[in-house]
Formats: sequence, C-alpha cells, structure tokens
Amino acid sequence: MTHALDLTDPLAAFPARFIQNPGVVAYLDGNSLGRPLAVTPGRFDSFIREDWGDRLIRSWDEQWFERPLTLGDRLGRLVLGAAAGQTMVGDSTTVMLYKFMRAAVDARPGRTEIVLDDDNFPTDRFLAEGIAAERGLTLKWITVDRTAGVTADQVREAVGPATALVVLSHVAYRSGHLADMSLITSIVHDAGALVLWDLCHSAGVIPTELDDWGVDLAVGCTYKYLNGGPGSPAFGYVNASLQSELAQPIQGWMGASDVFAMGPSYAPATGMRRFVSGTPPIVGMLAIDDMLDAIEEAGIEAIRAKSIALTEYAITLIDELLLPLGAQIASPRDASERGSHVTVRHPLFREVTGVLWERGIIPDFRAPDGLRIGLSPLSTTFAEVHLGLEATRVALTELA
Amino acid sequence: MTHALDLTDPLAAFPARFIQNPGVVAYLDGNSLGRPLAVTPGRFDSFIREDWGDRLIRSWDEQWFERPLTLGDRLGRLVLGAAAGQTMVGDSTTVMLYKFMRAAVDARPGRTEIVLDDDNFPTDRFLAEGIAAERGLTLKWITVDRTAGVTADQVREAVGPATALVVLSHVAYRSGHLADMSLITSIVHDAGALVLWDLCHSAGVIPTELDDWGVDLAVGCTYKYLNGGPGSPAFGYVNASLQSELAQPIQGWMGASDVFAMGPSYAPATGMRRFVSGTPPIVGMLAIDDMLDAIEEAGIEAIRAKSIALTEYAITLIDELLLPLGAQIASPRDASERGSHVTVRHPLFREVTGVLWERGIIPDFRAPDGLRIGLSPLSTTFAEVHLGLEATRVALTELA
Repeated sequence: MTHALDLTDPLAAFPARFIQNPGVVAYLDGNSLGRPLAVTPGRFDSFIREDWGDRLIRSWDEQWFERPLTLGDRLGRLVLGAAAGQTMVGDSTTVMLYKFMRAAVDARPGRTEIVLDDDNFPTDRFLAEGIAAERGLTLKWITVDRTAGVTADQVREAVGPATALVVLSHVAYRSGHLADMSLITSIVHDAGALVLWDLCHSAGVIPTELDDWGVDLAVGCTYKYLNGGPGSPAFGYVNASLQSELAQPIQGWMGASDVFAMGPSYAPATGMRRFVSGTPPIVGMLAIDDMLDAIEEAGIEAIRAKSIALTEYAITLIDELLLPLGAQIASPRDASERGSHVTVRHPLFREVTGVLWERGIIPDFRAPDGLRIGLSPLSTTFAEVHLGLEATRVALTELA
Repeated sequence: MTHALDLTDPLAAFPARFIQNPGVVAYLDGNSLGRPLAVTPGRFDSFIREDWGDRLIRSWDEQWFERPLTLGDRLGRLVLGAAAGQTMVGDSTTVMLYKFMRAAVDARPGRTEIVLDDDNFPTDRFLAEGIAAERGLTLKWITVDRTAGVTADQVREAVGPATALVVLSHVAYRSGHLADMSLITSIVHDAGALVLWDLCHSAGVIPTELDDWGVDLAVGCTYKYLNGGPGSPAFGYVNASLQSELAQPIQGWMGASDVFAMGPSYAPATGMRRFVSGTPPIVGMLAIDDMLDAIEEAGIEAIRAKSIALTEYAITLIDELLLPLGAQIASPRDASERGSHVTVRHPLFREVTGVLWERGIIPDFRAPDGLRIGLSPLSTTFAEVHLGLEATRVALTELA
C-alpha cells in the first residue's frame, strides 16, 4: 500500500532496511525506542563469535578501550556538529547528566542558582533538585507553556550574576517544542553562566552545530533516533575549551590519567577521557554504528527535511481526523519550532492506546491524556502515519 | 588432548558449551572477561528480532521495566545468598560503587572515616578519595601484604567510633586473596559502621551468604565470572533492613516512587528500585542469563570445588615449571584463602605475555611483573591450564 508521499520521498529506500514484522502495522514511537536495522543481528553475531569469543581480552587493546571516544567522535561528526575530542559514549543518560551538572556547578563556585524549566524531563529536574540540595544551591524555575516550550526571552529574564548553570532540553519531551539553542546559549553566556543541553529528543533527527554555537555541555540518548536498542548508553559533549577546568565526581579507573598504572591516587586524564568513569558498556554500543551508517548515507539535513514533512503530514491528518472528535494538538504548528514528534490530547487516549497496541498501531501514551506520535525519518513511511492516525480515529470513534 | 583430571571432573561437560575458536589455545583470563556461551548469539538474534524489533516499546511494560530487579533476584538466589528484593542490575561497577558509598556515608553523619585497604582495586580507592574530599571525610588506609590481602585482625584494629564505612574486596584483584567476609562484617558491625563488599573477583565462582552474614552493601561485575560480555552492567545488593534509610545521590526517573507520574519533585521508590537511576541497560544484560542457566545447572558449590582444583593444579605446575626459572608465586597457597586466580611474578612477564598472546595463550598481565592466571570453572579445562603454563615456561626460556 504505497502512499503518494512515499513515492516522492528521497529517503524512501530506508524504511525497508529496518526489521519488519507483520505484527507491527504502524510504529509511531521512534522517539521512545528506535527500530533495529536488519543488519544489526549480524553485527551482534560476529561481535560475539569474533571480537568477544575469539579475540577475547585482546579486543580491549585492539579497539574497546578507545570505543567511548571513537564512537563519540563519529557521533559528533555526523550528528552533533562537534569536532573530534569532545564527545564520549557511556553510562545512562541520567548518570551522564549527573556528572555534567556536578562538574558544571562546581566550576562556578561563586554562583548559587541552577536555572531550568518546569516541564523539563523528570530525570533532569530530579537530578538538579538533588544536586542543589547537596551543594547548597537554589533552583530557579522557568514556567513554560506545556504545548510549547522555553523561549529565549524567558531565559534572558531568568539568568543573572547568580546563575551557575542552565539546564534545558533542545526538544521538549512532551510538546516537541524546539528551542533556539544558538540564541539561548549566547544569552546564558552573556550572564557568565554555563549551559547544559539535553538532546535526547533531537539527536539524530535535528542537526546541531554545538561547536559553532559555543555550547558548553550536552547529553543525549542513543536508543531513540540513534536506534541503539533499549537502554543503550548516553553520549556526552564537553566543549574543548572547558574540559580542563571541569572535574566530574565519579572518579573511576577508566577516567584516570594512566589507566593501567593503578597508582595510589586519582589524577584525571586530559581531554574527554576524564569524563569516563567505569568500564565502557561495549555490548550496548554495538547497534549505534548501524544507525550511524544509515545517517551518514542519508545525511542529517535530508533527515531533518523528511522529519518536517512527516510531522506536517501528521498535523494535517490530526486536523482532519481527530480534531472533529474533540482532540487538541499540544505541539507547535510552526515546523521551525517543532522536533520530530507531535502530541495530541483527548480524555480517552489512555483507552485508545490500549486498543491501538493490540492492533499493532504503536504510538506512545503520556499521562494524563497525551498521545505522542514520534516519527523517525529513516524508518517511518507516510503510509504508516496515515494508517496509524486513521486507526486512531476508528478506535476513538468506537470508544467515544 | 584429554587430560586425566578432565576425565574425572564432574563439570567436564561445560567447557564445550562455550564458543570455541581455533585461535584460542588456552584462555587463562576468565577473571577479566568471561567467554561467551554458544547459546548467546541465538539469544541476541531472537531478542533483536522479537523483543526489540516486534514488541518494540511494548516490551518495556511486558518485561524490561522490571529487568533490573528480576535479573538481580535471580543473581541473588543462585550466586549471592540473597533473598529477593535486595539485588539490582545496572550502571557500571564504578557508578554503582559511587552510589552505594555516597548512600552509606550520608547515612552515618556523625562519623568521619572511610576505611579501606591500600591494595583495593583503583576504582574503589579513587571513588573513596573523591567522596571523602566532597563530604569532608578522612580515608583510613589498611596496609596489606600484596601477595595476600586484608585480615580480620587488621580490620579490627582499623575500625572504631569514627568509622562510617569500610570498603573491601572479597577477592583481591592482584593476589587473589579471599577475605573472611562473614567475620570481617561482624567486626565492622561491632564498631557501628557499615561495610561495602566489592565482589568483582568472586561473584559466580565463590559462594557467599550475604543475608546470613548480615552484609550491608555489595557490588560486583557481571563480565568476569558471570560472562555478560565486555562492559556488561554491575549488580548491587542492599540489605533489606537498610534500604529505607539509604538515599543514593543520582536521582533519576527510574528510581522515583511513581516512574510515570513525572511529578514536580523526586520521591524515592520503596525497596531496591530506589537504587536505580536511569533507563536500564537491557541489551547489556542479555548474556548474563545464559551464564546463570549454566551456573544453576552446575551449582555454585560444585563450581567452587572445581575452582579450587584448577588453582591447586596451576600452583603445582607453577612450582614445577616456572619457579626453577626464577618466578615467584604472589597468591595464597592455602586454598581456603584464595579465589579463582593465581598471580605469578617474573621481570620478563610483560614480554612473555606479548609472545603468549600471539600464540593463542591468553593470561592477563598486571604491571610491573605479574602474570595473572584466571580460571573460570565452567569454561576452563585442566588440559588448558597445562598447555598454558607449559607454553609460559617455553616463552620464558626463549626470552631469558
């Protein structure tokens, strides 16, 4: 069932490269968990038999020891706009955020405030709350419109000489609002503070220029639009100009200046290695390279163009099919202010999601009433968006 | 080439269940990285195609969300001597140690010292150093004999009313010395302090009774004798009686009391879930279950018996083949004081290791002069120990 928009899609060849299952009629949650590529099982098989099973411990010297940094550099180049030596892969997103927040506030000792928005992802807010309590700092909240997100003006009003760190999401997890990273970063810098961007809902689908925009710190997921598999490790970016003045609190052997010296006390490595803590999660990193191969071939600008086309199409269908049934769009209508997901609200969407999942139509549900449609440009077809939203209309009609 | 000792080994059927490679003549580093089981590639294949590729995000509800705790419970039951509800899997060993050390010292606010031995693994020492600095505590070092390890008498002398936490390894990473966990735990408790045991070099090969011995906290690796693959996640144990009074510092969404409430502030979950931080590393956990299947079938007591037989045999061969060439044994000779690895020293062992690796004989080298022979009872044959140590004699003779 080919859709007219798929016929003219320059990236139309990509969706067939992902593992297809008859039980998945329309996958609309690529922003929670990306689909596996068809080449991924083979990568794991040869990894287990060869890199792990044959080279065994020798693989640490041959490749694994540097993997957090070599994979980070590749991610930096293809996705983040970051030159080599500034990106690492490891830990969970939560742990990486903790390390970076601690490093940042400790590097601005005279300043007493962490600024963040009240609709930021729970982990970001909870971590800041804990760090503020243990370091004697205050949290300053920016109140945002939950159908949009934080604006440059709000940040300008919030920051000042007391601000140590500003923590914001590039794309809001709820509304999909896309913040102006370049402008907001310069506003934060004008106040003498550091900024930490959470890229979980944008990395792999929205191009960034972290170096050119002078971003200080960034952290993101690899299991959403980077298709690393459930719980694959985080990535972290630290601007080269800041690395030597930042010290992260989880002082493990893999971040020491001479890892195998095993000396009496800790001295951090120079460069990005100082942000590594424990033994790198090699198995969890494997699938990311398959998606980076696909991203490299497609190009991040073409991915963004298709992301916009997919969300525009979804909004057209929502207007046509769901608004007449009482649903509301809770995402920006202007594509330049929107990431790659669209949230729609209706009091019956919890029940609707249950029905849809059983029918192989898989959006995400976010309490209390949000249906979140996450569109991953390389794996999602326009036909799938149509099928999924038409099925939503049917389920809503049945349940209403 | 069957060895007489393999003929009478009750666990002789197990080594053939691991992936065999012609390039691996003798693998003597099971205490750094366990070998993959032959069933493991199939587990990953069906995981990627079905659990991830077909069920997609639905697998979080169906199984993944609880995996840190269900896998932890299985590990507790088969390997640790821990009843359900006290063990979790996640993070790197370094990160888990950091969380537990912080939680422990913060729970003993009047006390000012962390006690640890000066030959503990670098990550343990480096973390304690950082935590002491940030919490205004003092480190009290027990100086140990590097061919042995910490004794109960040394701990008794070191602890007192100022001790908040004692951090020790069950099996010393260098010498293989096995500490008396039960006795030392009671000595620490008599002083009113908490104890955190690092089980990296013992979990899966030395039975423990964490509940019966009243252990407070324990952390260990899963990529050594639990064969989870390079960088597979850590496990952590917190005694049920302590869980409600401990708060860990990395307050992530997955440790909150109601994960999907996404409320305005953090309240920790009850029970072990409060020690979880970020999204669980599901991909990295997969292989552990294959090894737990094998451990369940063999039984941990039979594994310990073979571990002793393997290290006894290795010491006999070292005495016969390497001591005449000037090598020295740097591990306890009494099996009741020894884990599953044996360290031998010789000034030429760095060069010897390079030669051996090229010949498919794979021990570990630890600077400045230690050859570490790690014997994993389910995957290692007596023939392999013989081959490996005879090849070491040959290489040493060539280079001397």
